[in-house]
Amino acid sequence: MAEKETEISRLGEFGLIDRLTADLPKTNASTIRAVGDDAAVLRYPDTDILVTTDLLLEGVHFDFTYMQPKLLGYKAAIVNFSDIYAMNGTPRQITVSLGISKRFTVEHIDQLYEGIRAACEVYGVDIVGGDTSASRQGLVISITCIGDVARDRAVTRSGAKDTDLICVTGDLGAAYMGLQLLEREKAASAGRPDFVPDFAGKEYLVERQLHPQARRDIVEALAKEGITPTAMMDISDGLSSELLHICKASQCGCRIYEERIPIDYQTAIMAEELNMNLVTAALNGGEDYEQLFTVPLTDHDRVAAIPGVRIIGYITKPDLGAAMVTRDGTEIPMQAQGWNAFTEPEK
Amino acid sequence: MAEKETEISRLGEFGLIDRLTADLPKTNASTIRAVGDDAAVLRYPDTDILVTTDLLLEGVHFDFTYMQPKLLGYKAAIVNFSDIYAMNGTPRQITVSLGISKRFTVEHIDQLYEGIRAACEVYGVDIVGGDTSASRQGLVISITCIGDVARDRAVTRSGAKDTDLICVTGDLGAAYMGLQLLEREKAASAGRPDFVPDFAGKEYLVERQLHPQARRDIVEALAKEGITPTAMMDISDGLSSELLHICKASQCGCRIYEERIPIDYQTAIMAEELNMNLVTAALNGGEDYEQLFTVPLTDHDRVAAIPGVRIIGYITKPDLGAAMVTRDGTEIPMQAQGWNAFTEPEK
Repeated sequence: MAEKETEISRLGEFGLIDRLTADLPKTNASTIRAVGDDAAVLRYPDTDILVTTDLLLEGVHFDFTYMQPKLLGYKAAIVNFSDIYAMNGTPRQITVSLGISKRFTVEHIDQLYEGIRAACEVYGVDIVGGDTSASRQGLVISITCIGDVARDRAVTRSGAKDTDLICVTGDLGAAYMGLQLLEREKAASAGRPDFVPDFAGKEYLVERQLHPQARRDIVEALAKEGITPTAMMDISDGLSSELLHICKASQCGCRIYEERIPIDYQTAIMAEELNMNLVTAALNGGEDYEQLFTVPLTDHDRVAAIPGVRIIGYITKPDLGAAMVTRDGTEIPMQAQGWNAFTEPEK
Repeated sequence: MAEKETEISRLGEFGLIDRLTADLPKTNASTIRAVGDDAAVLRYPDTDILVTTDLLLEGVHFDFTYMQPKLLGYKAAIVNFSDIYAMNGTPRQITVSLGISKRFTVEHIDQLYEGIRAACEVYGVDIVGGDTSASRQGLVISITCIGDVARDRAVTRSGAKDTDLICVTGDLGAAYMGLQLLEREKAASAGRPDFVPDFAGKEYLVERQLHPQARRDIVEALAKEGITPTAMMDISDGLSSELLHICKASQCGCRIYEERIPIDYQTAIMAEELNMNLVTAALNGGEDYEQLFTVPLTDHDRVAAIPGVRIIGYITKPDLGAAMVTRDGTEIPMQAQGWNAFTEPEK
C-alpha cells in the first residue's frame, strides 16, 4: 500500500458507503428515494419496468494487470445498460454491490466508484442502493439495473419471424482481439518491471476491451425511424451464441453472410498477427456490446439508412437451421462457441 | 465429488441456467416476463416500487461446514424479503446471481436453488432473472429483490419523531448465539470425523442462525391495525447499530430500557455458558431479521396488542443522544458495535 492510501477497515462498512454515495445526483423522475434505507423507492406508473443484473468476478471477468479500477467501474455499469437497451428500453437506476478483499484500499474503491458514477452520468442513470462487504479473495462487483420502456414495447428474443432481416450495430470481434493483445503484452511483461506494452496501431482494440460503450444511440435511432425490432439482444457472448439464442427463443432458423459481418481493420490485422481465423473471432469473440436485432423486410430501407447498422442476413423457417454462408457460397452450421467460464481451471 | 454428482462444466452456463430456471412459477401480476431475455419485464402502474440487494460471500457470510446449500439459498432470499418488509412493502420478484467455483457440483447448486425457490414459494415471490458465472474461489450469491408498497406509503428510517414509541418484533441475540454455538461445535469437531455436534436444548438458536424467517406477519398486522410506523428497518447488524441509523436519519435521540429487550431463554442460557454479556449479545448480535419500528404515542394500545411486538423505549429530542437505561436506572450511551467484516483478516 502506497503512502496516502487508506485501509478500508479504518472507515468500516458504513463509513465506506457514506463516502462512496455522498452527493449522488438524481437524474430520473422515477427515482423517489435512493441510497440510505433498506430499499430504494421507485415509481413507474406509465411504463413497463426492465430489470437486469450482471456479476463480475476478479480473475474470471477482469484482470487488474491491465484493467484500471475506474475503467472497470465504467464497464461494469455499461454492460448492464446494454442489456436494458437490448430490450428497447432506457436504463434509469442501478444498485451496486461490492465484495472487497484486504488487498484494496479506499482509494482503489473510490476510483472504481468514480468509473461507475461516470458511466451513470453519461447514460443518465441514478445509483439507488447496493451492498458493501469484505471478501476473502479478490473483488466482486454485482450490479442490477432498472430501466423503463413504453408499455408492451419491450423487445425480447422471441419475436423474430421468417424473412425478417438480421441486423448488427458497429463491428464485431474487436473487444476479443483487444483481450488477446492485452494478454500477450501481459505475458511479455512478466518479470520485466521496465516493460512498456506496445499498442501502437491497435488502440481501437484496447479501447473496445477496456472502455466499451452501450448502444443507446441505436435505440434512439430506431425510435426516430419508427422501427420496432421483432427481436433484439446485445452481443456479449459472441454473435453465434446470440443468434442461436434468438433462433431458439423465436423458433426459427437463420442465414447470415460471412462477407456482411462488420469487422474493423485493426481486428483483421490483429487476427493476422496472431494467426487466428478472423471470422471465428468475429462470430465467437465476446464483449462487443453491440446490438443484434431483427426487423420486418418492409423496414429494409429505413434500417439500412441508420448509420452504423449492417444487415447481415435473414431469418428462415426453423427446419432450415442456423448457418453462415461463406464467400464461396458454402453453408456452415452455426455453433455457439461462446466462452464457457466453467471449463476454466480453478486457480 | 461423490458418485452421481455432475461437474458444472458438463452443463455449461446456459445448460445450468436452463436446469435451474425450468418451470419457474409466476405468482405476481406485476411479473410480465421473467427469465430468458436480456432483462425481466415488470409492471407496477399503481404502486411505488422497492429495490434492495444483498451480497453473500463464502467465508465471510456463510460457512458450509454447518450451512447446508438448501438452507443457505433460503436464507439468501429471506434477508432480501426482510428489507422489503422493513419498507412496509411486499416482496414480488428477485434476480439471483451466482458465482460458483470448481468445488461445487450441479447437485450442490440444485440444492441451493431449491432453497431459494422454497423461500419464494413461502413468501409469494417470483424469480425473474440473474447471472451465473464461474468464480475462482468459493461461492458468491447476489440477490436483488423488487417489491411494492402503496404509493407514498413506504416507511423509511427518517420519520421517527420525539415521543414516538420504539418497538421490536420477536426476540434478539438468538441468531448470534446460534453462530457462537455452531462455531464452538465446528472447533470441537476439527480432526474428529466421528464427532456429533450437540445442540440439545439449543435448537432454537441453531434454527435462528441457519433458517431465519422474514417478518411478513408484522407488516400485515400493522396494516390490519391501521398503524403506519413513522420509521422502520430490519435488524440485521444488531439493535444498537440499527437504532443509531434511525436516530441519525431521523435526527433524534432515543431511550431504550434494558429490561424491555426481548430475549429468549435459550439465548440467555447460551450466554451464560459462553460467559458472554447477554445484553451486549442482544444489542449487537446480528442476523435476527426482526423488525425495529417507531409509532406515534397515540398508537400505544393498538401496537401493544399485536402479538410478538415489544415496546422497548421511546424517541427523544436529538440533544439527549441515544442511550440504554439499565435495570438500576443508569443511562449507557449506545454504540454501534455491529460486525465490521472489514477488520477480519484475509484468509
